[in-house]
Amino acid sequence: MADIGKLLWPNAVAVVGASADTHGLRGRLVEIMRSHPFAGRIYPVSRSATEVQGLKAYPSVDALPQPADLALLIVPAQYVPAELERCGRAGIRAAVILSSGFAEEGETGRRMQDEIIAIARRHDMAVTGPNTEGFSNIAAALCANFSPASDKSAGPLTPEQPLGRGQISVISQSGGLGFAFLDRARPRGFAFRYIVTTGNEAVLEASDFVDYMLDEGETAVFLLLIEAVKTPEKFKRVAAKALEAGKPLIVGKIGQTEPGSRAVASHTAALAGATAAYRAIFEHYGLIEGRDYDDMLDFAAGFLACGHRLPRGNRVGICTASGGAGIWMADACAAAGLDVPVLDQATRAALDVHLPSYATSQNPVDSTAQGVQKLGYAKFAQLVADSPAIDSVVVVITARRSAFLEADLPKLKSLARDSDKPILMWTYTLPSERTVEILNETGYPLFTGAPGCARTLRALADYRAKRERVPRPIETKPAAPNRATVAAALADSPLVLCEYRARSLLGAYGIGADNMSRLAHSADEAIAAAHAIGRPVALKAQSAGLPHKTEAGAVALDIDGADMVRTAYDNVLAAAKRYAPAAQIDGILVQPMISPGREIIVGVTRDPTWGLLLMVGLGGVLAEALNDIVLAPVPLDEVSAREVIGHLKGAQVLGPYRNLPAADLAALVDLMVRLSEFAADHAAEIESIDLNPVIVHAQGEGVSVVDALIVRRDNRAAERRGAAE
Amino acid sequence: MADIGKLLWPNAVAVVGASADTHGLRGRLVEIMRSHPFAGRIYPVSRSATEVQGLKAYPSVDALPQPADLALLIVPAQYVPAELERCGRAGIRAAVILSSGFAEEGETGRRMQDEIIAIARRHDMAVTGPNTEGFSNIAAALCANFSPASDKSAGPLTPEQPLGRGQISVISQSGGLGFAFLDRARPRGFAFRYIVTTGNEAVLEASDFVDYMLDEGETAVFLLLIEAVKTPEKFKRVAAKALEAGKPLIVGKIGQTEPGSRAVASHTAALAGATAAYRAIFEHYGLIEGRDYDDMLDFAAGFLACGHRLPRGNRVGICTASGGAGIWMADACAAAGLDVPVLDQATRAALDVHLPSYATSQNPVDSTAQGVQKLGYAKFAQLVADSPAIDSVVVVITARRSAFLEADLPKLKSLARDSDKPILMWTYTLPSERTVEILNETGYPLFTGAPGCARTLRALADYRAKRERVPRPIETKPAAPNRATVAAALADSPLVLCEYRARSLLGAYGIGADNMSRLAHSADEAIAAAHAIGRPVALKAQSAGLPHKTEAGAVALDIDGADMVRTAYDNVLAAAKRYAPAAQIDGILVQPMISPGREIIVGVTRDPTWGLLLMVGLGGVLAEALNDIVLAPVPLDEVSAREVIGHLKGAQVLGPYRNLPAADLAALVDLMVRLSEFAADHAAEIESIDLNPVIVHAQGEGVSVVDALIVRRDNRAAERRGAAE
Repeated sequence: MADIGKLLWPNAVAVVGASADTHGLRGRLVEIMRSHPFAGRIYPVSRSATEVQGLKAYPSVDALPQPADLALLIVPAQYVPAELERCGRAGIRAAVILSSGFAEEGETGRRMQDEIIAIARRHDMAVTGPNTEGFSNIAAALCANFSPASDKSAGPLTPEQPLGRGQISVISQSGGLGFAFLDRARPRGFAFRYIVTTGNEAVLEASDFVDYMLDEGETAVFLLLIEAVKTPEKFKRVAAKALEAGKPLIVGKIGQTEPGSRAVASHTAALAGATAAYRAIFEHYGLIEGRDYDDMLDFAAGFLACGHRLPRGNRVGICTASGGAGIWMADACAAAGLDVPVLDQATRAALDVHLPSYATSQNPVDSTAQGVQKLGYAKFAQLVADSPAIDSVVVVITARRSAFLEADLPKLKSLARDSDKPILMWTYTLPSERTVEILNETGYPLFTGAPGCARTLRALADYRAKRERVPRPIETKPAAPNRATVAAALADSPLVLCEYRARSLLGAYGIGADNMSRLAHSADEAIAAAHAIGRPVALKAQSAGLPHKTEAGAVALDIDGADMVRTAYDNVLAAAKRYAPAAQIDGILVQPMISPGREIIVGVTRDPTWGLLLMVGLGGVLAEALNDIVLAPVPLDEVSAREVIGHLKGAQVLGPYRNLPAADLAALVDLMVRLSEFAADHAAEIESIDLNPVIVHAQGEGVSVVDALIVRRDNRAAERRGAAE
Repeated sequence: MADIGKLLWPNAVAVVGASADTHGLRGRLVEIMRSHPFAGRIYPVSRSATEVQGLKAYPSVDALPQPADLALLIVPAQYVPAELERCGRAGIRAAVILSSGFAEEGETGRRMQDEIIAIARRHDMAVTGPNTEGFSNIAAALCANFSPASDKSAGPLTPEQPLGRGQISVISQSGGLGFAFLDRARPRGFAFRYIVTTGNEAVLEASDFVDYMLDEGETAVFLLLIEAVKTPEKFKRVAAKALEAGKPLIVGKIGQTEPGSRAVASHTAALAGATAAYRAIFEHYGLIEGRDYDDMLDFAAGFLACGHRLPRGNRVGICTASGGAGIWMADACAAAGLDVPVLDQATRAALDVHLPSYATSQNPVDSTAQGVQKLGYAKFAQLVADSPAIDSVVVVITARRSAFLEADLPKLKSLARDSDKPILMWTYTLPSERTVEILNETGYPLFTGAPGCARTLRALADYRAKRERVPRPIETKPAAPNRATVAAALADSPLVLCEYRARSLLGAYGIGADNMSRLAHSADEAIAAAHAIGRPVALKAQSAGLPHKTEAGAVALDIDGADMVRTAYDNVLAAAKRYAPAAQIDGILVQPMISPGREIIVGVTRDPTWGLLLMVGLGGVLAEALNDIVLAPVPLDEVSAREVIGHLKGAQVLGPYRNLPAADLAALVDLMVRLSEFAADHAAEIESIDLNPVIVHAQGEGVSVVDALIVRRDNRAAERRGAAE
């Protein structure tokens, strides 16, 4: 692994392609770098100029007075490989390739990008790009980029009065969008450490930078902007490491939708994986997904100010002097899945002493303007924070005027220092600069949007809960005792494993246990099997060539008695032959009918980026129309499996619902865990698994797998595809 | 109706309770009013002072040198009725009651509020409040309120360079929140006309002000902030008038959730109606609902700048110089239900001429930085706007620097003037003041949030579509020919009309036509009825005391043949008697079994605010768990009924879905329209109607009403409640 430290913390930087023309990007790059007090040396490298913007220029990186640590390459694409090679030979161990025209632009570009990879490997260079906008090391005042957000006129790099004590780092695949975080956060006074844009990620990926920064330990909060993850295993490893370290990864995923993905394809030469799969990974590893800048920066504010006192739960106390504003905040909290419970009597009594008669202490606590005038925000918030009925406090303020906060400053400071619950502020007017300073100094995160404030609280609570139940690492899973046997059987199976074959393999993992079903090869065998079962049965044709046997009419249900079994056997067999004349029919499965219950779909699906994922969804045509499914990586432990079920929109139907008793959630969780282990153990061999439907019976009565199908991965076909690429 | 013009446009204003102390609200009120160049006279009225803030003060409104047009009352609640009466006698015809402590504070307050109503009526006064924060007439520079947002230090009342040519008026039940619109919109340069806060609405309601301003004709866009509508019929009438006039009502509904509503109850003494009901009314009358300030102000920006060229559809062209930003915007568009189609060949060819090889013209059109540098934003946007494949354009810019827009100014102006498609701008950096000026001057709305920009486009398109299919006004509906007969029968019916009774009344409106069912009073009659039907039947006990007959086991399905009918008859009767021994059983309904299809629930429900509403939802336990129902006011025309179905989350299952043909939507729509007419015709008599389930068969095969129940309104009970209140 090349040394990212060389890239981010250079003593001397060569700018290959530097120009005097500050209207062009090649000149802007030098101009912006020089406008900040970076302590290192800057060497312009130019074929034509001997001086660039007052700096002596050199004809080549070979000719520098001393070796540079980092080269910035901003020359036309076709010259990049040669220049990079020259850098490597000159002993430069880090490079940023700002030029465009590589993998995003077709075959020639792709070949040049491959050359870059080879050169970087050869010289052990830390390389970002191509097609990147560069990076900023704010701590070193090094802005190696041409972003308008880095322009000195846009404002200082570091705030006078930062919020909280921690620093933020941005890692973005998109250049312009990445630097805009700094621009947009300026009025809020966040302290940034790094902004790195990674472009095409020929060599270094976003995860590599997160990894470096986690090791460095100076970044408290990460903002990631991602189009497509290049090395999923690395991403997952780094995400787990960040969660373990308690360093939140706030992530924006761009290219979530069809038109968006279409653009990603043309933009960064990597197809964006399916949104649901990304979301599954984010959920599993505790990444906090934001929908836009405002969302992501709101989350960052929450973690910066309250990362050391995350809420223990979802119960919010709201302090307001405006009734309407308190209500709007309560609405926002409810929409974010938070509770705004009526406060306990003791707290209400303590509040009521200070409130006028037309105020209310129930929650939202509406002090009215008169009440807060008397109490002050700090005392008001403290009385509410002391309530055992809540886990966090939102104070509604009007931050246009700072005088009232100013007067309350000492109390606000001591409350922020002493409270073990997060206290957030929402202002319904825009804040004055002085208000922001006061709140940053005292350590309260300030929000201008009620929904953003509420969603942040929810994210803080979720993150704490996630960390308190970090999923068991994959390594601790014991291998299934039957793993080798199943692997051998799988290798010997046809590409499509119809129900009886699938059941026999899954059964080795304790999935869909059923010792009554029999594969019949004649009507008499079917009758005998039905007799042994002793209650109504189903008959289903079994063939690798007939994966959708219901569609073929090759299934008979609720068959009772020898005559009906005989007729059904003949019918099912005939239907199967009619539907798929060429298919080899292995037999007719005779199976006990299963009593009704909640219908669920459990499966395993292969995502192009993330590989095998467990899928669970509610059964039935409506659930499908609403696309109510949730994915998760495999293997999965019980805690995570329960979480996954909780994310179903219709999860409520599994609980005690109307006149139905609660479903056997424990059995469903067990099934999911076992299936996830099966999938993880045999990942290379599996394309998909469908248990559809699974009937979840009432609590204590288990689950029944009604049907099962495994489709093996056609590894030879995959190899052929790989060779052709 | 009192004259609102007197209230909003006074020549002389008396401030009853004026004070010299500018730290208190009574002094702030005078201070703020005087800080703006209001041309009228201000008369402080004070019991103790002879001078207030340099103005001569008077001991009473009787003693003014000339009668005031408007009185602002800011004295303790208990003095308000007497002071208001004094104003009325002194010939003052308008008053704003800023004092708190009325209906929001219990019985004594409620009585005082009733006194206010009586006094206002007696003297024909236009009165707002009590418990209001006052109003601003920006056009007259009159700030009759104590809001910090009106403080001169907060900024000018009117922008130097307003966006568009229209003015915005705010009408808010909440005081603080209402004035905050002005504060929050200042950086965007919106021109406000009025900000009115209405408090408890003892006399004048928000709708009254909208009505006045619609007549006045100077307000282009309305922002409404509503906790609870006091007079629903007035609200609906004014909403319809605004839609007809093309003046968008952008509405924020606060108190949507349980904790929120709880606070509303204690806050404004009016229980917030159910969210779904409000939403139904908003949808029906084309109000545009915003979730928060940012949403509402984004919508306002869209209408101010593009109200005269609303998009004809949902197809968006995106111009960007940053690939990532274009993708994020495409994602936001897709999330808002907009399309981002690949552009037509001619447009692409016209674009490609100007774009570098690594750019793309598909859509999002990514010009790259180099491309836009050459083209300029205006030319770029124009080429995309010319495409027949799109209805609107979003240009992604970085508004931190204005120089590039400045250079393009003449072209931007002529494009804005000539384009018949809306062109919106999204900036991913924060805009400089100069950029806002340039875009306001040229008439492009600027958004800092991609989701807000996309949602605005969607709102613009929806509003145009809504206006192009304004629902038929209620008046044009011909009375059902059977209306009088049904009314008479309804009046004679028990409070609960079980299925056979409900069917006979609904049948008169063409609902659930079924000339085969028979009410049997003996097993023999049931056998005869089943025989006449000639296929399997259902038997259902009929009794007003048995509204939930399935739960009672008093239903038998799929009954075929005389013996089975006899047994079923006896069983059903026995079950009914067991379940409700005291109930009078009218007979057993014998009905043909209905072939399966999509299961729908259609009904009518009474909302405490909005009265009878039609309800439609998908059947089944999951739909119920997901609460997938939509409401609409009655009566409803076909166009609106179709819209209502389209708002179901699971609407897709009605279309051709998987292997099912499309459902008979026309028949479902017809059923909804008929039921809505039934409900409207007999509204005073009806509490609820359930047609549950309705089976929607395949296209052309109609609908079957499987069960029906009408619950009459217990008008005597309602009267008793009314008297007790």
